[in-house]
Amino acid sequence: MAASSLLRSLTRRNCAATDAFGHYQHHFRSPFSTAAAQAAAAAGARDEAGTKGGFPGLRPTAKGQKARVVVLGTGWAGSRLMKDIDTNGYDVVCVAPRNHMVFTPLLASTCVGTLEFRSIAEPVARIQPAVSKSPGSYFLLARCTGVDPDNHTIDCETVTDGEKDALEPWKFKVAYDKLVFACGAEASTFGIRGVTDHAIFLREVHHAQEIRRKLLLNLMLSQVPGISENEKRKLLHCVVVGGGPTGVEFSGELSDFIVRDVKQRYSHVKDYIHVTLIEANEILSSFDVRLRQYAVDQLVKSGVRLVRGIVKDVQPNKLILDNGEEVPYGLLVWSTGVGASSFVSPCLFLSHLMEVFNGGRIGVDEWLRVPSVRDVYAIGDCSGFLESTGKEVLPALAQVAERQGKYLARLLNRVMEAGGGHANSKAEIDVGPEFLYRHMGSMATVGRGKALVDLRQSKVG
Amino acid sequence: MAASSLLRSLTRRNCAATDAFGHYQHHFRSPFSTAAAQAAAAAGARDEAGTKGGFPGLRPTAKGQKARVVVLGTGWAGSRLMKDIDTNGYDVVCVAPRNHMVFTPLLASTCVGTLEFRSIAEPVARIQPAVSKSPGSYFLLARCTGVDPDNHTIDCETVTDGEKDALEPWKFKVAYDKLVFACGAEASTFGIRGVTDHAIFLREVHHAQEIRRKLLLNLMLSQVPGISENEKRKLLHCVVVGGGPTGVEFSGELSDFIVRDVKQRYSHVKDYIHVTLIEANEILSSFDVRLRQYAVDQLVKSGVRLVRGIVKDVQPNKLILDNGEEVPYGLLVWSTGVGASSFVSPCLFLSHLMEVFNGGRIGVDEWLRVPSVRDVYAIGDCSGFLESTGKEVLPALAQVAERQGKYLARLLNRVMEAGGGHANSKAEIDVGPEFLYRHMGSMATVGRGKALVDLRQSKVG
Repeated sequence: MAASSLLRSLTRRNCAATDAFGHYQHHFRSPFSTAAAQAAAAAGARDEAGTKGGFPGLRPTAKGQKARVVVLGTGWAGSRLMKDIDTNGYDVVCVAPRNHMVFTPLLASTCVGTLEFRSIAEPVARIQPAVSKSPGSYFLLARCTGVDPDNHTIDCETVTDGEKDALEPWKFKVAYDKLVFACGAEASTFGIRGVTDHAIFLREVHHAQEIRRKLLLNLMLSQVPGISENEKRKLLHCVVVGGGPTGVEFSGELSDFIVRDVKQRYSHVKDYIHVTLIEANEILSSFDVRLRQYAVDQLVKSGVRLVRGIVKDVQPNKLILDNGEEVPYGLLVWSTGVGASSFVSPCLFLSHLMEVFNGGRIGVDEWLRVPSVRDVYAIGDCSGFLESTGKEVLPALAQVAERQGKYLARLLNRVMEAGGGHANSKAEIDVGPEFLYRHMGSMATVGRGKALVDLRQSKVG
Repeated sequence: MAASSLLRSLTRRNCAATDAFGHYQHHFRSPFSTAAAQAAAAAGARDEAGTKGGFPGLRPTAKGQKARVVVLGTGWAGSRLMKDIDTNGYDVVCVAPRNHMVFTPLLASTCVGTLEFRSIAEPVARIQPAVSKSPGSYFLLARCTGVDPDNHTIDCETVTDGEKDALEPWKFKVAYDKLVFACGAEASTFGIRGVTDHAIFLREVHHAQEIRRKLLLNLMLSQVPGISENEKRKLLHCVVVGGGPTGVEFSGELSDFIVRDVKQRYSHVKDYIHVTLIEANEILSSFDVRLRQYAVDQLVKSGVRLVRGIVKDVQPNKLILDNGEEVPYGLLVWSTGVGASSFVSPCLFLSHLMEVFNGGRIGVDEWLRVPSVRDVYAIGDCSGFLESTGKEVLPALAQVAERQGKYLARLLNRVMEAGGGHANSKAEIDVGPEFLYRHMGSMATVGRGKALVDLRQSKVG
């Protein structure tokens, strides 16, 4: 809880971090350096670190010490990785602008009070206690502003956005033996004007808090005497854009909330509140067609208005569809899928080292390694198999991320046991079998205690 | 919980509401009107309300309808009043910028997670369900910007501070049969520069949330590699100004938090965190001297540094004492007692009707009525006995406010039963015994599961 309330203010402005990348170029010595050159550079860095004060941050580890795994991100992938990593052989350093993991599938339920925020947020220190106890392990509340693969270091900057009287952001470096990108993706706006300014996403705990606050505020405001019928209807019109699982589940939760709570607790205005779900194509398109039909029936029965349409423009308190229709709203929730995270952007500077493909994902090989740079891995929504692997792009799902985290922890533990935990260790280590994904099925609730379960096996693997 | 997270953003800026009072003068017809003139004016207002659309808000009640009690505030006094009011005879309309009551004695415990925020915040609609169910009762999220005692109406304005895309504040009037000021007091800064900007008070749930967030943020920032020893000590120096029960209890909670949680969960920085309590005189001055000594011993044993001093100036990250000493801090909590609330300020415009005495309290008679205006009452921290009553000023305590709310509910119920519920009813109604206060004792926790209980009876009554 503490975690979630803390991060509420910390995560809000992190999207605007890209201007801090400029100085990265400076560290960029030799993009096509050989392993030998890298080793020499790393050795240099290590010597440099030996002189006191010469290295502002966490210095490279020495051979006798534990190796250091640096994990960027605290989502499904990064959290599972940290949970399973063997802390007898590795120090874990997590760098992220959020100190907790969010159980995203239940986020929609927190918006209307079905669940409490603290129930779906787990502090990193509880997932991997070493970060708060072990001398060489840390959770660092910071964003990564640059990567120097030659020297095996990253540049970081503390995160204190929105805090009054906060210190100036503190810049520091962290040397890594293994670096794991697990920084996720961000809600996609398709470049539609006004989305970021006026809609609320549903990806973080602070989003759910904002939705809850806005919903209650509108309920209270609509009770004010003298307010017009039209204004009341507008204030209490909840519009959800995006008919994927999140949008459908949130619509279901909202209609449950209206039936269970609004009718009782806001009986003055109970007939004015309505939910509209806007989707350009089919809702729940990844589900079987019969399940889709069931979901539609349930939603309509619950009073959700389903609209097929494409949003062209979002303005304060109204949005415009492609057919010109204006839809006034009091609350607008945007859940149309994910694109690249700005937190992942540092790696885009490495694009001539790493192959980055469509959607800004970091290309990885069958073992989730980023080819052409040593000791760098990518898992979860920020990563995707390179074309050369012949594997399909995996969907941006928790079950993919979580299993990649689990797989990579096992791989890194095996590498460490074989004596390859430190940076630039000899490459002749068996990293084990490649990552295989088997889809376990999908679930989505539709409100009124009902849900869909699709157990068809995916061909992806 | 919903209530508390909602109000966090709503209450923050309410202090700056005084500029909305200007238009009050306009309604101010006859400051020294007689009761007869008032009745005529009220009758006029009632006729006017009869014409549709002529009255933007809640119109005066008709004789056959329930009478309307308007309560300004949702603290101890107002909440108890609303709880006990007889809703068979009265409609209850509560106007306040906060939709919940806060169990203030336990606020300090929420800052460090001993208690959850939702445990100490109770929505008004749960205290008096009529406001969400009964056709003529409402909770209105608004501030009161003016009072027109001649016409028995108040001016209101909705509160949406800090919300993005919020509607323009909506202005409306509420006609009252009985008006109760229960708007409390605000933390007192003694005019010391920088307090409002840099210190955090401890009066509302959002204050406790801010303290918790800041504390965790500083704990995380102090772990960042490369940060100097001095900077660490400063970040983790928690300074509490004010040695009353709140200041002492918060210091105790903090030192418990350090022993129980910081030592375990932030072991990297556990030796850098310290608590200093600054008080100009004796701590817990209202308690017996032996209890005071016990409290001092316990606090010192817990590692709290007690400083006798007067704060002269508060700057970002440091404060200056009157002896010139500079005290750097990472977290500054201000709990030096209370002064007049800006929410009560509208009544100051009535100062030639109501006698307002020291500290900006509204003067009341033995029955908590505001003399010289009809049907207006004041209870809790915003009120005080007039000199003419010969009674002492009651301390700004929950037990005073709560018992005044209970007393006034009984008085109003009695008046209603005698047929005097409506505005300007005949004055020949027995209002019952005058309000008598008997002090029941004081309690304060000092951390480590220990507390003081002072059962000496006060002479106040």
